[in-house]
Amino acid sequence: MEANELINRAMARGRMTLTEAEAKKLLSKYDVPVVDEVVVNNGEEAAVQAENIGFPVVLKGLGEKVTHKTELGLVRLNLGNEEEVKQAAAAIAESAGADLEGYLVQPMLSGRREFVAGLVRDPQFGPVVMFGWGGVFTEALRDVAFRIAPFDETEADRMLDEVRAAGLLGAFRGEALADRDAIIKALVGLSRLGTEFPEVAEIDVNPLLVGPDGRVTAVDALVALSRESQLTQRHFESEAVQTDKSFMDAMFHPKSIAVIGVPRTMEAGWLGLMGSIQAFGYPGRLYPINPKADEINGLKAYASLTDVPEPVDLVLVSVPAPLVPAALRDCVASGNKNVHIFSAGFKETGEAEGIRLQEEIEDIARKGGLRVIGPNCMGLYVPKARIVTWMSPSGESGPVAFISQSGGHAQDFTHYSSRFGIHFSKVISFGNALTLDSTDFLEYLGEDEETKIITMYLEGIQNGPKLLRQITELNRRKPVIVYKGGLTEFGARAVASHTGSLAGGEHIWDALYRQSGAVKVNSLEEMADMLLAFLHLPPARGHRVGILGTGGGIGVAATDTCARAGLEVPVLTEKTQKAFREFVPAAGNSIRNPVDAHPAISDLGNLEKALNILAGDPLVDVMILSIAIDWLFNVEEGGYVRKLAEYIAEQSRKHTSGKPLVVCWRRFRPDQGMEEVEHFFQKTLYDAGVPVYDNLSRAAITLSKFADYHRFINTGGR
Amino acid sequence: MEANELINRAMARGRMTLTEAEAKKLLSKYDVPVVDEVVVNNGEEAAVQAENIGFPVVLKGLGEKVTHKTELGLVRLNLGNEEEVKQAAAAIAESAGADLEGYLVQPMLSGRREFVAGLVRDPQFGPVVMFGWGGVFTEALRDVAFRIAPFDETEADRMLDEVRAAGLLGAFRGEALADRDAIIKALVGLSRLGTEFPEVAEIDVNPLLVGPDGRVTAVDALVALSRESQLTQRHFESEAVQTDKSFMDAMFHPKSIAVIGVPRTMEAGWLGLMGSIQAFGYPGRLYPINPKADEINGLKAYASLTDVPEPVDLVLVSVPAPLVPAALRDCVASGNKNVHIFSAGFKETGEAEGIRLQEEIEDIARKGGLRVIGPNCMGLYVPKARIVTWMSPSGESGPVAFISQSGGHAQDFTHYSSRFGIHFSKVISFGNALTLDSTDFLEYLGEDEETKIITMYLEGIQNGPKLLRQITELNRRKPVIVYKGGLTEFGARAVASHTGSLAGGEHIWDALYRQSGAVKVNSLEEMADMLLAFLHLPPARGHRVGILGTGGGIGVAATDTCARAGLEVPVLTEKTQKAFREFVPAAGNSIRNPVDAHPAISDLGNLEKALNILAGDPLVDVMILSIAIDWLFNVEEGGYVRKLAEYIAEQSRKHTSGKPLVVCWRRFRPDQGMEEVEHFFQKTLYDAGVPVYDNLSRAAITLSKFADYHRFINTGGR
Repeated sequence: MEANELINRAMARGRMTLTEAEAKKLLSKYDVPVVDEVVVNNGEEAAVQAENIGFPVVLKGLGEKVTHKTELGLVRLNLGNEEEVKQAAAAIAESAGADLEGYLVQPMLSGRREFVAGLVRDPQFGPVVMFGWGGVFTEALRDVAFRIAPFDETEADRMLDEVRAAGLLGAFRGEALADRDAIIKALVGLSRLGTEFPEVAEIDVNPLLVGPDGRVTAVDALVALSRESQLTQRHFESEAVQTDKSFMDAMFHPKSIAVIGVPRTMEAGWLGLMGSIQAFGYPGRLYPINPKADEINGLKAYASLTDVPEPVDLVLVSVPAPLVPAALRDCVASGNKNVHIFSAGFKETGEAEGIRLQEEIEDIARKGGLRVIGPNCMGLYVPKARIVTWMSPSGESGPVAFISQSGGHAQDFTHYSSRFGIHFSKVISFGNALTLDSTDFLEYLGEDEETKIITMYLEGIQNGPKLLRQITELNRRKPVIVYKGGLTEFGARAVASHTGSLAGGEHIWDALYRQSGAVKVNSLEEMADMLLAFLHLPPARGHRVGILGTGGGIGVAATDTCARAGLEVPVLTEKTQKAFREFVPAAGNSIRNPVDAHPAISDLGNLEKALNILAGDPLVDVMILSIAIDWLFNVEEGGYVRKLAEYIAEQSRKHTSGKPLVVCWRRFRPDQGMEEVEHFFQKTLYDAGVPVYDNLSRAAITLSKFADYHRFINTGGR
Repeated sequence: MEANELINRAMARGRMTLTEAEAKKLLSKYDVPVVDEVVVNNGEEAAVQAENIGFPVVLKGLGEKVTHKTELGLVRLNLGNEEEVKQAAAAIAESAGADLEGYLVQPMLSGRREFVAGLVRDPQFGPVVMFGWGGVFTEALRDVAFRIAPFDETEADRMLDEVRAAGLLGAFRGEALADRDAIIKALVGLSRLGTEFPEVAEIDVNPLLVGPDGRVTAVDALVALSRESQLTQRHFESEAVQTDKSFMDAMFHPKSIAVIGVPRTMEAGWLGLMGSIQAFGYPGRLYPINPKADEINGLKAYASLTDVPEPVDLVLVSVPAPLVPAALRDCVASGNKNVHIFSAGFKETGEAEGIRLQEEIEDIARKGGLRVIGPNCMGLYVPKARIVTWMSPSGESGPVAFISQSGGHAQDFTHYSSRFGIHFSKVISFGNALTLDSTDFLEYLGEDEETKIITMYLEGIQNGPKLLRQITELNRRKPVIVYKGGLTEFGARAVASHTGSLAGGEHIWDALYRQSGAVKVNSLEEMADMLLAFLHLPPARGHRVGILGTGGGIGVAATDTCARAGLEVPVLTEKTQKAFREFVPAAGNSIRNPVDAHPAISDLGNLEKALNILAGDPLVDVMILSIAIDWLFNVEEGGYVRKLAEYIAEQSRKHTSGKPLVVCWRRFRPDQGMEEVEHFFQKTLYDAGVPVYDNLSRAAITLSKFADYHRFINTGGR
């Protein structure tokens, strides 16, 4: 029987799980090495087959309605002869009653290494495959790795190494090396099965037993079906044809804008949408819509969008939520397609009226073919096009794009980044994602020549597989940095399998990061830290850090901090140490790494020597220069720190042998003069494009993730 | 045979491990429930005993030289009748050869739940007991908890809950509840055994099997002995009688000080030891020692300490390392006992000459009865006594003491803390701890009336058990905050057991934190954050946080941040939500928790209402007020933020129902006016003693650890 027949037959009979025998038949077609087994009708047949298989055997009750076999006593292990098989069959028949339809006879396999493989269907990502520590302790130990399907052998191979129990795959206590390839094929098979059959909702292969000879066998299996999962899959496949470049171009560089809902007078503290656009010097045609005004802020006002003399490139909607449906109908009526809905009060309120309103406007938008940014968002900020919806934006354009589900984050992050000389090509705050979602913007920005690095703040997504495909493809050309909000929230849902119950929370998003190589950050601050590295540093060849610094306890703290961040702190070569020893005395200094040596920092000539020596060490991949302002301030009352800043800004990169160097500083003394020097130090380095951080932890985390990215790009993540 | 006889006999014969039978005999005396077993001489006897025990049985080869029994095939499982026992005995005899001295016959126990218990002797902490997931996968899974011995049943009980596999102790898949008490008693027994017998170096009880009936049995056991561990233990017990209060009083409030090694002219950038003391306004008698000067900085100079007219309360030594031995000899000769050695260049260099020098001065100090702070450290900072060895210290005295192994940290932390209005009673930088160690200072500060909170920065310690006892006792009266440097460094050492190989790194220090309730921090910044809470907040009754704030993405970020920090973010009661809804509209606001509501923050009357409502919610234990300066600045161009600061400083605590409230703020816009407002906001709150942090993560981590502390104090850590 073919795979689809097995599935269809069960569903036709209203069954939402396959029997164990069916499940294994299905899985065997997808490279899962299932145990050799025979289905029989009664104890006599079982005894005969057991003889063929060879004792000891396992006997299991089988039936369409038979679940929880172990708990019901329908699994009998280690049967040593024909008589025991017959007795077991009788006992099973008694326990199962009318539900019993037959028996499974299997060889009794031994093996201490039990793994689990499985599949679960995530509402955002579709089929997701799990591998981990198995057997009865699966859920107690939660030692598992996930991958979003489809994926290939290389990815499955990486997955194996992610679980703590990976060590058990090697030769283990007298047992042979596990057949790693068999596990890899099985995982890829599960990925294929999940991709081909949306009606397969969950799979548990548990245990996936590794025998003393290393052979891998699926001893038990569960396959759960669902009609809902079919719907999710169809949703992923039905891509609205919205990501047409020309309309995106029009939205991001609009020649004309209409704003529905412009107050006659400005609110206190905020210019409003139109005011912000005007204040930013927007050069295009701007049409305020307000039925109660003739003119607003020097511009002719229109009573309705339908009165505006042309279809515009972008309509901004800023009326209270209950009036939004009417505004959208006006858009449809007047042939306007590109809309940003600023207004809030929809699905995000979690209240009935808001949810109903969102459904109403979604219906209008879809039927009318509207391309909607929002609702509940700040829309677009494009410095070159002079469009923005908030106050005091930077007027400078730069190579970074930001796709943000939060409007607050869009404003805050662009303001914050400008401190560090980071500027933006395009920023999109898209809120509730009525018709345009993050993937639509990602597609556009992937081709946007002004955009070299893409940052994203995401809460929910509508098409996980597409997001994964896009980031995976893009990330090599343009680093993609993703801040996922809500990672710690665990959705409660009913699940049938171990795999399902283990799939919550961060696991699946971690799979996205691991598979795509996207850079994971957990805050806006961290996102800016990463941007400084991506904007200014040469590639990192590895994770081994050389640290040059001075000041209290830095050696110990730096080693701890770097180790926690995922960097290695190698002991420098003899040659390097000897070179340092020539101008750094032993007392009060350390030169093994970290190089904690006042003499190497407190003189510019020595600093240059020290940078050259450190960069020349073959054990060093990346470098941190750690400046304790407190300890250097006394030299020339801050004058030396200023000179140091200028030296680092202008000269340091010539002495790093092409290795990435970041700078961090500390300043503990509450001293006005020191604060000024600190500002000068930072500003000088930002202006020069030298990544600089206000503590070692930020520097170390940034460098470590930066090295992760380059390892991924160079080796596929190994 | 008594325990000491078993151990002594083995050591007398030069054996460093007990046989399995001896090990179990020893363990059974310490409440470890070992399997019933019989020692026999040959296969015939084994068969007879197997009959008595009941089949199936396990047969093991036994002998003083027999190790790695499993690998050598000397363990035969599941023997079903007499014949099989005899055959197995013969096979074992063949494999073991001349080393075989007899056999162990045990019942064949079944059980899927395998744990491990063990003991290891740590050079800093002495005997440490482990419990965790056991069986052959112990090291692959590393699911273990440690406790420093001795400890009691309550502590052992907490230990059980720390391992992920704790769930297996409940009724599990048809198997009964584990006999938890038996495990607890066994762990306490191991603790006692380790304490009573310093020659017991390592123990592995693995597996500690839980049967289907819940019964707990030690199936196998290893006991390793060592003569070195005896020495460590003696070291812990030999307390030098140094912690005499009167001499400590003299050191911390010296009426006279001599400084050996005062340069005739001040160095650039630093006043030196004597200069710093003078600049701080020290009122006592000060004697500079310099054979080449008559007078230094207005004071009569002496050629040698022996020329000084009186024995002083404190001698400061600041000559190059090679001259320190002579200086110490002068101390001994002149009857001076209290010494601070500032000089570096000793053991900390890791170089042969430095190590030799340290041994030399230790010898002089011990023989001469010197009480030495240092070498390689900054010594004492006592604002009330006007002594300090660095520049620009705060002159104010406060309730915090700091014991720091790093001189840099001592300076940096006191400078840094003064920004927040945190001041110190006594600060000790003690470096290499030649004769006075952290525990000596801790003992003194525990009784010091000026000290209400104790902070510590530690790298290595000499007497872990004493430190544990002291902190455990002190922590209830005076919170103890410990920053341990070097936690991520794993010492490589040869070990005989699983327990030993799992005991590295953070595990044992975590045991110290868990047993003593000391507050764990990983940086100076975090230490200051915690001090603000301990200095200013009422006790926390739990970990449930209510968050009141406004601004971009705060809801999602706040929930993530608090969850990561270990706080719970409960959905507020219906009553609370209703009360908020009266003045907070649905669109653009959230009131479930976090309360993300601009109207509740942007008006002082509303803020007061909001605080009262939030504090009144019975689900809220602690509160965070999150202020986005960017979002409030536009109201009166910063004027509102200033009013807000003053309101929070003066009024907020009246509206928190006695619950702890901390404030955090963010400011993203690079705007001079905003920066000034930000400074005003912070300063106003620091001055008023309201804990305030520059981001939510710091606020959340602080509150969570603060709640941890109070839970520990109230419940012993549950």
